[in-house]
Amino acid sequence: MLNELKQVALQIDELIVNDDFPTAIEPQYLRATVMDYPSRGGKRLRPALLLWCCGLLGGNTEAALYPAMAAELFHNWTLVHDDIIDEDRMRRGQLTTHEALRLFARETFEAGDLAADKFGRNFAILAGDIQQGWALNTILKSAEHGLSAELTLALGRRLLKLGSCRLISGEALDIEFPMRKWQHISTEDTLHMLKLKTGNLLRFCAEAGAAIALNTGNFRRKEIKMLGEFAVAAGIAFQLRDDWLGIFGDSGKTGKNIASDLTTKKPTILLLKTFENLKPELQLHLTGMLGLDEYDETILNQVRTLMRDCGAEAYVREETEKLASQAKKILYRFPDNKYRTLLLELTAFLVNREE
Amino acid sequence: MLNELKQVALQIDELIVNDDFPTAIEPQYLRATVMDYPSRGGKRLRPALLLWCCGLLGGNTEAALYPAMAAELFHNWTLVHDDIIDEDRMRRGQLTTHEALRLFARETFEAGDLAADKFGRNFAILAGDIQQGWALNTILKSAEHGLSAELTLALGRRLLKLGSCRLISGEALDIEFPMRKWQHISTEDTLHMLKLKTGNLLRFCAEAGAAIALNTGNFRRKEIKMLGEFAVAAGIAFQLRDDWLGIFGDSGKTGKNIASDLTTKKPTILLLKTFENLKPELQLHLTGMLGLDEYDETILNQVRTLMRDCGAEAYVREETEKLASQAKKILYRFPDNKYRTLLLELTAFLVNREE
Repeated sequence: MLNELKQVALQIDELIVNDDFPTAIEPQYLRATVMDYPSRGGKRLRPALLLWCCGLLGGNTEAALYPAMAAELFHNWTLVHDDIIDEDRMRRGQLTTHEALRLFARETFEAGDLAADKFGRNFAILAGDIQQGWALNTILKSAEHGLSAELTLALGRRLLKLGSCRLISGEALDIEFPMRKWQHISTEDTLHMLKLKTGNLLRFCAEAGAAIALNTGNFRRKEIKMLGEFAVAAGIAFQLRDDWLGIFGDSGKTGKNIASDLTTKKPTILLLKTFENLKPELQLHLTGMLGLDEYDETILNQVRTLMRDCGAEAYVREETEKLASQAKKILYRFPDNKYRTLLLELTAFLVNREE
Repeated sequence: MLNELKQVALQIDELIVNDDFPTAIEPQYLRATVMDYPSRGGKRLRPALLLWCCGLLGGNTEAALYPAMAAELFHNWTLVHDDIIDEDRMRRGQLTTHEALRLFARETFEAGDLAADKFGRNFAILAGDIQQGWALNTILKSAEHGLSAELTLALGRRLLKLGSCRLISGEALDIEFPMRKWQHISTEDTLHMLKLKTGNLLRFCAEAGAAIALNTGNFRRKEIKMLGEFAVAAGIAFQLRDDWLGIFGDSGKTGKNIASDLTTKKPTILLLKTFENLKPELQLHLTGMLGLDEYDETILNQVRTLMRDCGAEAYVREETEKLASQAKKILYRFPDNKYRTLLLELTAFLVNREE
């Protein structure tokens, strides 16, 4: 499966680098910025999901390439705005968009601290704006590459609904959580947020692949809905695994700063469940260990022990497994072919990864 | 003409308020925020331009309503992000999006100053993001309201190119100007920026109206290009008038703070031309009068006298007239009908307005 995934990545990389939409962007460094995240590579999981769901139903995966590229671009622009919002400095081992632009302003315009900060943020807002347009333009191009105008329109509108409307709603809830008191966020709230923020674009990918194979813009068709559900289940499982790795993972493998979720007091399901299960005095103890600037192994192990002993760690692993089984069960209802095997392997990969 | 303009505004207002795209937005106050600017009313100049260009060429203006609404929504989301970037507090007599959200965070979440600032800005970024999606979704809906799927796709891609790509490039140049040294910005630079930032959406409106009337997605058709040029000329004339009113207008009529362009040292063509025409010692004198927090009549009159005596004020008025004539001349090449009269009156209105 990893080889096939690499093949998909190569195809998407090439389409992105050669696309003509960014050529009309000015100034030149904004054009370069718009190209930046999309050409940083990455696994291209969303395009693979879209292409393989298309293949699963016997569709022509060549005709699905532009929608696959569109999903990847869509993912990337949300990262650009997400990074501004989270004030993150690094993305895939390189500077985030706003951070790179901040440094650019310092060097090129000799801007002071405040001016450079604002410039970085403002230009990054615009870069993400153009990228959203680019994603939409890419899906609309599908009509020139094998899809009917009607299906192309239906796919465009589906991406706008699940992406621009629902995914961004999830991002909004994610920003809102830290503003609310802990007691007012439940594991259901977080699950709902994850379905919106992570689930919707994956749902789009699966649905779009199926719709292309079936040549229909009717997203209420049974196969399309089933594959949409598969993608959401796999996506949430992936996210739960991510939360688990954030505390119990090996930072040498994940490349992420272990415990950054604790520093930011991120209301993950793992953390919320721990609070739910702990007695009041231990809740207080845990609260005292949140929001620290640094975590040494001693404190980290205390947190881990609390999470294990109260059953929250096991709960998250079981939920992850449950969702992964649900996802696989849906796939088994489709006839066996090489794409079904790839999707099954992809699902296993998402929930078992160590990095 | 003003009556017909009001009719257009009523139609667009009703379409916006009843559109179903925002219903899937969460949380509820983000949905309300997304509806905010689009339902604040305003003249709806862009929809009128689109509908009347369609009518000029004998098209069915009913079929052009969704593209007209899309242009208006597109304009509105760029205002939301523009207001974040410019850190403006007011828009059309009410709080800007980020400012309203900042106050909301203070009241609802009892957020501190910094947290409320960030919340306001971050939620406003997301609101604008969804609005861009809404604008695109609206144009794609045209296929359900009288336009062919092919023409709908062509209009969508044209909006993405002229709007998401070129208009935002203009916005980027506008942010870049204050980072550059004065001597490095020419009137040509500013004119180019205006063509991008103001001209492109107006060009889209004129072109889309014409394309709908002619039922073609070929934007190289002569009539389409001509009307596009008409809209850009009228738009730049409008913008020059705006700059002129910013210094020589009656703040009682414009409702704007006279001299705010001086406070922000905005490199308008009026100001750049003044610098170009002044002798070095007077340039220095003018520089000393820029960037003040307040302007009393004495200083303001000194600036006005400098601008008049060096010929820059006359230059801007003449350029405005020249562009308006160009725009009208293009219209006179089309057969006379009621829409041509409306467009001629609209052009005159844009460049003669006192407010």
